[in-house]
Amino acid sequence: MKIEHIGIAVKNLEESVTLWTEMLNLKARGIEEIKERGVKLAHLELEDGPSVELVTPCGENAPLEKFLEEKGEGIHHFCIEVEDIEVAVAKLQERGIHFVHDEPQKGAEGSLIAFIHPRNFNGVLIELKEVKSKT
Amino acid sequence: MKIEHIGIAVKNLEESVTLWTEMLNLKARGIEEIKERGVKLAHLELEDGPSVELVTPCGENAPLEKFLEEKGEGIHHFCIEVEDIEVAVAKLQERGIHFVHDEPQKGAEGSLIAFIHPRNFNGVLIELKEVKSKT
Repeated sequence: MKIEHIGIAVKNLEESVTLWTEMLNLKARGIEEIKERGVKLAHLELEDGPSVELVTPCGENAPLEKFLEEKGEGIHHFCIEVEDIEVAVAKLQERGIHFVHDEPQKGAEGSLIAFIHPRNFNGVLIELKEVKSKT
Repeated sequence: MKIEHIGIAVKNLEESVTLWTEMLNLKARGIEEIKERGVKLAHLELEDGPSVELVTPCGENAPLEKFLEEKGEGIHHFCIEVEDIEVAVAKLQERGIHFVHDEPQKGAEGSLIAFIHPRNFNGVLIELKEVKSKT
């Protein structure tokens, strides 16, 4: 189990990608839209370890719009890699942990993800992401 | 350059350490108080990669108290490792980046740190931490 990325809510994705990559010498992996979740995002790679995910709402009634209105731009969540999302969710549910959705959702780059509800861990939104075997 | 930890502002450090370590099987490195910065903190280790830092205000007029009052508990900052803090700060200042303090401050475990002002990067507070050579 390790941290895979930190998600940052931004208003203008393209401008933010330029800012972060130029100022911090990060490399962007390109912009991806996930219509099912109403988000558009870009992963910025550091030399090693977790990436920075810049994420912006897209489409109507995107849930992230509410976050930006209430809290403004800033760190939105962090993501932990798990080997098997179903197993990880079941184990945490046994311990009384609540999730935002009942079933894993489609995440970035074809992954399966699940969000732990912020009320479990001091207001922190934690994403679990299933790491695909590379074989 | 890589992410070293994610800092989470909490109201009750001891209770939060118990919650995070038990629910997510993390290992706490012990609680440290940094009087100069008005914080008390604990690093929780994952199997690999960045740690989770739980941090709470201590003493009078602690700056973190204001964050908790205004935004509540949640992710407060993330930290990037740098080899030489003076060099890293100077390079970023040349690019027009502003820091919270003029000089590096004392951080956790005897490190030297500097905080990039949140206005530079979409409201995100980024800590730079000098990694000590292990030789």
